[in-house]
This record gives sequence, structure tokens and C-alpha cells, in this order.
Amino acid sequence: MAERQARVESALSTALPDTSHAPQRLHDAMRYAVLGGGKRVRPLLAFAAGELTRADADRVAQAAIAVEMIHAYSLVHDDLPAMDNDVLRRGKPTVHVEFDEATALLVGDALQSMAFEVLAQPGLADDAATQLRMLGILAAASGSRGMAGGQAIDLDSVGRPLELPQLEFMHILKTGALIRASVNLGALCGRHDETAMHKLDHYAKCVGLAFQVVDDVLDADASTATLGKTAGKDAAANKPTYVSLLGLARARELADDLRADAHAALAGFGSEADRLRQLADYIVRREF
Amino acid sequence: MAERQARVESALSTALPDTSHAPQRLHDAMRYAVLGGGKRVRPLLAFAAGELTRADADRVAQAAIAVEMIHAYSLVHDDLPAMDNDVLRRGKPTVHVEFDEATALLVGDALQSMAFEVLAQPGLADDAATQLRMLGILAAASGSRGMAGGQAIDLDSVGRPLELPQLEFMHILKTGALIRASVNLGALCGRHDETAMHKLDHYAKCVGLAFQVVDDVLDADASTATLGKTAGKDAAANKPTYVSLLGLARARELADDLRADAHAALAGFGSEADRLRQLADYIVRREF
Repeated sequence: MAERQARVESALSTALPDTSHAPQRLHDAMRYAVLGGGKRVRPLLAFAAGELTRADADRVAQAAIAVEMIHAYSLVHDDLPAMDNDVLRRGKPTVHVEFDEATALLVGDALQSMAFEVLAQPGLADDAATQLRMLGILAAASGSRGMAGGQAIDLDSVGRPLELPQLEFMHILKTGALIRASVNLGALCGRHDETAMHKLDHYAKCVGLAFQVVDDVLDADASTATLGKTAGKDAAANKPTYVSLLGLARARELADDLRADAHAALAGFGSEADRLRQLADYIVRREF
Repeated sequence: MAERQARVESALSTALPDTSHAPQRLHDAMRYAVLGGGKRVRPLLAFAAGELTRADADRVAQAAIAVEMIHAYSLVHDDLPAMDNDVLRRGKPTVHVEFDEATALLVGDALQSMAFEVLAQPGLADDAATQLRMLGILAAASGSRGMAGGQAIDLDSVGRPLELPQLEFMHILKTGALIRASVNLGALCGRHDETAMHKLDHYAKCVGLAFQVVDDVLDADASTATLGKTAGKDAAANKPTYVSLLGLARARELADDLRADAHAALAGFGSEADRLRQLADYIVRREF
């Protein structure tokens, strides 16, 4: 896993514009936002899915960093004063604190463009039509019926009593969509058939939801120092979470049920799916 | 021109998510940001370039609205308090005034995703490889070495004495990149050769710069009511402009020189380039 994370870091560093190129301050802030931190869960999922379809690892690395750029931009915008107003991310000051708000806004905007620029480079799939499909998947997962839409629902939910189905709908968009895209994009870099894609997508849905349930558990349970971001802020903001709706014990059970569902979705595969199985376990059992 | 503008409006309205779909407030704000206003200069350029390559008009309409969504998102983010802090756009309250800042942020983010989603729909060019090229062009034109980069330089330039070459570099990124993309994308929807693409790109560079020079002239010269946005704000913000560097008369001359250059770039074409010629005239001679 550490080897994959290092590979992602290196690919991101190569793809991001050098700080010697104008506009230098913007490029400096883009590198600050993306490099040197994060668990890189989405790239790891892309690599694991690419392993299943025997995809070329250089291709998968490009798809993986495209997804990670979308993720990184969303964190930068999420942390802005108009949104979550957070000052700490991955143990460092957030981008608008380290630079300024206008720069943070543009960093997010430019990272989103760059994700699609990376994914549009020729040769990331066996044919250009498949690569167009990959671009369509990433764009839909990022937009108003994906990640950005989930954030809009999240904002509207502060202080309101969401029911469990609404909370789930919010997270399916906010976190789930991009995690599904990671798995789908990684697999599409290699030789895939639609039956396998369908199973992988089901796996990705379970893992995406489990990821969020565990996030809620950790936010309620861990310290700011361990998380590298402000802990307990959901409760402080009176935001509904799996923990506030289910309690800590049942939220943990739900995460483990989803882990089991993710394994079940992979039942038809052999050892080529082992990395995906390990990641489902890692995502549920992680402590930060 | 009115017929083309109506076609763009209709294509945008069809492509944008309906307000009956969740998240409704976000979708409502996205439609508010995009529909019912604007000169649609970029789509008109895409249509004119598509006419030159005998492109199918339905294809061009999709490419055109993709570019317009990028343009619309940039206006929403540009108007935010952390950027230009503007309250009026196209004669209406800006998105963060009519809705709120967080919604305006997400509207811009989601519109950018949607632009790439629209452009990734299959069938917009004769082959998928050309369409990948189109996606790469739009992404590069939007990012840190395109529009977003130009905005970063613009922010850094407030109150600083920019020289003419630096002002030009800023505008080539901030406005020029997306105008070039409009022309290139429209042409790529049809049967193109690289010689024609090269000429068209030169035309687009001249028109892009002329567009900005005229914007500066109008900002210094016209009223808020005529423009539908706050007039005189560049001077108020002590921003360098073509007018502040050259004076009004020489700025007008420069715009007309660029118009002549744009015509010269099209010299090898016949009547199939007439619409492009008309647009170069319109962009330089418009009064708002």
C-alpha cells in the first residue's frame, strides 16, 4: 500500500504545474493542496480495480490522480469560510488560511479542470470510446447529481432532523459517487466485461457507504491529533451523522455489514480481487 | 444571430438539471446562473467555426453549451466576495446575492463538471479520438494555464503597475483561452484539416484579445444600465486596463487593428467564413 501511495504522490507531483511557471502563487497553492498528505483511498481503489482487469499501471496512475485531484479540490472548497470554515486539514493549515480565500477558490477551480485534462490525455484505455466513457463517469460523479450535489444537501441539513434514508442519499452523492468512479475508472483502464463492471460497481457502492459510516464513527471517537483535521465538528455543527442517528455501537455494526456486502460482491472473482478485499477491510478498520 | 442565441438558450435549458430533481435549490441556482442572459459570444463563435467545417449543428450546440457553462461558472465565482465582490450581473443580482455564498460556490463547481459531462457524451465528433482532443482543449483552456490562471494574475495585479505585455499575458489566459477553445471546438465537430485549424486558431487569438480591449473601453465609457453589470469598476479597483495603459483612443485603435488581423487570418476561406467575419466585426463594434 505504501508503494502505491508513493507512486500516486510521484504521479501527482509530475502532473501538477511547476511553481516556476506563471501564475506561480496559484501553482504553489495547487501543489500545497494536493501533495504531501491524505490516505489516497480513491487512487488505491483505482489501482486495486485495475489489478482485477490487468490494466497497465501507468494508465491506472493517470486515472487515479484525476480522481484524487477532484477529491483535493472538493476539500479546498469545503474548508472555505462560506462552507465548513475549517482551518486544519491533513495536519496543516487549510489553503485559504495558508494563502487567501480567492487563491483557495481558484486552486479548487483549476484542480477540477486539471483532473479532466489528465483524463483526456490519449491512451488511458484500449480505445478512445472507453476513455470518453471514463470522462463521462468522472464528470457525472463530480457534479450536481454527484459530489457537489451531496455537499449542497449536506449544507441544507445543518440543524435539521434528517432521517436515515436522507442521510444515506446525501452520502451516496457526497462521498459514494467519487469512490464508485475510482473503482470504475481503474477497471476501465484494462480488459473489462460488463458483468465484472456490474459486480465491481456494487462493491464500490458498499465501500463508499462504509467509508462514510467509519468517518462519522472516527469523527465522534478520535482526537484531532489522530485525524489531522478538526474532530467532533459534526456534533458541534449539529449535523446529522450515522452516529447521531444510530449510536456508536450500531454505526460500527453497519460499517462491518457493508464490509461483508463488499466481500460478497467479489465472490465470483479469484485472487485477482484480493487487493479490493484488503481495501474494504482497511477502509472499515482504519483508525484515522 | 438571434436564432443562434435562442438555440443556445434552449440547449442549455434542456441540458441543465430540472429544478424538480434533488438537490433542488442547487439546480434552481444553476439555472439562474446560466439561463436568460448573456450575449453568448462563445457559443456564437463555436457555431460560426462549425459552419466553416460543415459540422452538424446539433453537435456544435453541445460543444457550444459546454463552453458557455465554463464561462457561466467563472462569472459566478468571479462575483463572489472573496474575488470581485459584485452584486449585479446581466442586470440581475449575482448568484451569491440571490441565493448565498456556499450555493454560489457549489453552482460554479457543478457547472464546471457539467461542461465536461456534456462534452463527453458520445457522438460530438467524427471519431472518439477527436472528441478526446476537444475535452483536452476545454480542460486546458479552463485551468491554471488558461482562464483560472488569468484570474489569479488579475487578482495579483490590483494596484500594481502592470506593463502592456503582462496585461496581454493576463488576458490571453483569462478571456482568450476560452474564446480560442470555442472556435477550436466548433470546428472539430466537423471535417477539419490542420491547416484550417491553424488559421482558425490565429483568428480566435485576435478576436479573443479584441474582445477584452473592447470590454475595457466599454467599462470606461458606458453606463451600468447599458452594460447590465457594474460599470467603471476596473478604475475604481485601480486595476490596469488597456484604457488605463493606452488611453481610450489608442485602445479603440488597437481593437480595430485586431479586427483587421482576424479578417486577414481568414483570407484563404470563401463565404463559409462569413459568419466568423461578421462576429469579429460584432465583437469590436458592440456597445455593451
